[in-house]
Amino acid sequence: MTFSAATARAGPPLTLRVHGDRLVTIDQARLPFEVIELGLRDASDCAHAIVTMQVRGAPLIGAVAGFGLALALRAAADDTALDAALERLAATRPTAVNLRWALERVRARVRPLPVDARAAAAWDEAVAIADEDVAINAAIGVHGAALLRGVAARRAAAGRPVDAAAPLQVLTHCNAGRLATVAHGTALAPIYALHAAGVPLHVWVDETRPRNQGASLTAWELADAGVPCTVIADNAGGLLMREGRVDAVIVGCDRVARNGDVANKIGTYLKALAARDSGVPFWVACPTPTVDRSLADGAAIPIEYRDPREVTHALGRGADGTPAELRLVPDGVAALNPAFDVTPARLVDALITEHGPCAASETGLGTLPPFAACG
Amino acid sequence: MTFSAATARAGPPLTLRVHGDRLVTIDQARLPFEVIELGLRDASDCAHAIVTMQVRGAPLIGAVAGFGLALALRAAADDTALDAALERLAATRPTAVNLRWALERVRARVRPLPVDARAAAAWDEAVAIADEDVAINAAIGVHGAALLRGVAARRAAAGRPVDAAAPLQVLTHCNAGRLATVAHGTALAPIYALHAAGVPLHVWVDETRPRNQGASLTAWELADAGVPCTVIADNAGGLLMREGRVDAVIVGCDRVARNGDVANKIGTYLKALAARDSGVPFWVACPTPTVDRSLADGAAIPIEYRDPREVTHALGRGADGTPAELRLVPDGVAALNPAFDVTPARLVDALITEHGPCAASETGLGTLPPFAACG
Repeated sequence: MTFSAATARAGPPLTLRVHGDRLVTIDQARLPFEVIELGLRDASDCAHAIVTMQVRGAPLIGAVAGFGLALALRAAADDTALDAALERLAATRPTAVNLRWALERVRARVRPLPVDARAAAAWDEAVAIADEDVAINAAIGVHGAALLRGVAARRAAAGRPVDAAAPLQVLTHCNAGRLATVAHGTALAPIYALHAAGVPLHVWVDETRPRNQGASLTAWELADAGVPCTVIADNAGGLLMREGRVDAVIVGCDRVARNGDVANKIGTYLKALAARDSGVPFWVACPTPTVDRSLADGAAIPIEYRDPREVTHALGRGADGTPAELRLVPDGVAALNPAFDVTPARLVDALITEHGPCAASETGLGTLPPFAACG
Repeated sequence: MTFSAATARAGPPLTLRVHGDRLVTIDQARLPFEVIELGLRDASDCAHAIVTMQVRGAPLIGAVAGFGLALALRAAADDTALDAALERLAATRPTAVNLRWALERVRARVRPLPVDARAAAAWDEAVAIADEDVAINAAIGVHGAALLRGVAARRAAAGRPVDAAAPLQVLTHCNAGRLATVAHGTALAPIYALHAAGVPLHVWVDETRPRNQGASLTAWELADAGVPCTVIADNAGGLLMREGRVDAVIVGCDRVARNGDVANKIGTYLKALAARDSGVPFWVACPTPTVDRSLADGAAIPIEYRDPREVTHALGRGADGTPAELRLVPDGVAALNPAFDVTPARLVDALITEHGPCAASETGLGTLPPFAACG
């Protein structure tokens, strides 16, 4: 199933679609209480959607940025305009590497071409990026499902078989589901694959303050797909792991350094520590475009700091059913809002790539083919 | 400074006061946006205030429960009534050991007495418990401040002296401040002591979902006392420790087992893991009444599960300035709400008791005198 053919055939639910000359996606800032389509008609729309997190998730950001650059070239496609549009889009979010990767890929494709051929070629390249994202995530789903089946087999061997009364228990942080990608998701792809195969599963969903992507997005998409899940405070996962109530942790990633250090949503590192302390496998679903081979280790990954208002306030639905915002922190008290942290490679049991699992190390990443479409 | 004399002399701000025949405290469920006095006239008022977390914090719960039992005995003080009142109050919260400790202490005091002498004696015993809490916490403040001065000295020796531009950085979780006690607080007592001594300090305050005791109570009382602080999401502390931006972590506790395992607010364990991983001292402010020598280790500590609504919803102040509640999780999605976790003793660098710091171990706790008032 690919993106370009998706509108014509049955396939996975797509978070991003092409409709005529524009993109259509879901406004994720309005989920889970309002499911509103968002049309993106030009590069400014795309940049605005990324900055405001109407679209988020490293792979989806990459795809939208690719289309955004293609849309920019419809207005002006000379070298100056190309470079300026690329930089405008690249500046929207600093941590996810897919953003710049997708933009550079589109630029490399169109730069050798005559100016008047660039916009169409860029659009084709953006479609290819989106197609590949769908294929990559489907492959991650297959490989991750095999890892989870291994956990289920070990549980059975230990006398605790996975069944409807005792499902496989997976904990995830933030949203690395279909909403974070063009389709399938990364961390949730193995869960969807196993669920489709009839394996009893239950997902512990970290709320993921301050933006609550777990409570709002992951809970919404898992419930929408019929996968049993329970939302917990970000503070709770350590206790559940200590009590043997988590069989595996799977998270996504925004950028992976050459040594296997993983930048992902703030709080990921704490769950990796807890998983290691309780002997729970900690896996990172990692499309190879998220690997940044230019960085020796995670210390070089830029950490985005977002508006402290995300910490001092919470968004949700009021008693009257409408979206509302609450202040949580006393007036005059400051807040700090780092959006990502870096989990050291030593705490990662495997990176689940589209080529299969690999060790989170320079050696492990070295076993992978140079990035190329795998579909 | 003691509780009983507090109304007559200058002293620390008291969270609990006696006013005529009733208790007066602050309704902590309304903080930080409304500072409302709460009068407790009888045992039912006390039990209700504990269940609804209008009063919370292990030491404060113990004191209020002691007064609650004394108030119950005014109505009926025979053995049956005494035992029934004790069990009603003991059932309000399961994790904090101070609750049952205070109740048993009041019962032991009055049981040998004639029925008509019991209510007055129980009141005296509750006053003694409250007095001792003030003294214990003042002593914890002195001992904890000495530990923090040691950290400051090591920073100076490493060429990073503590000064106004680079204050001592302490991270705390939940609220173990004056609001959790009769006065001074436990984890915050060393901070107040150092602040009073003019040492430049800054406190990272974990929001502490789902009840947000950090964002609401700790931020409120630190700001009220003029101590610089910044609220962060519970997810953020690991990153800050990795980046060297935390000099020490100090938390309170609800029950400590004989081997030094510490039950405290959910999420404490994750911060202990992160502190160990980054070489940051992790200290638990531990009044000896919080040690439960009847339990061999933390596995035996009962963990309270509270209403999932605390996870699916958030409380705060709406745009119109009034208290409001938001739903965060999609309709139909479940939530789980464990209120405490257990930090293994191996992750605790010291218990700061009123007798001084000790190792979190049976040997360490064995060096302490049997619990007795230290003031």
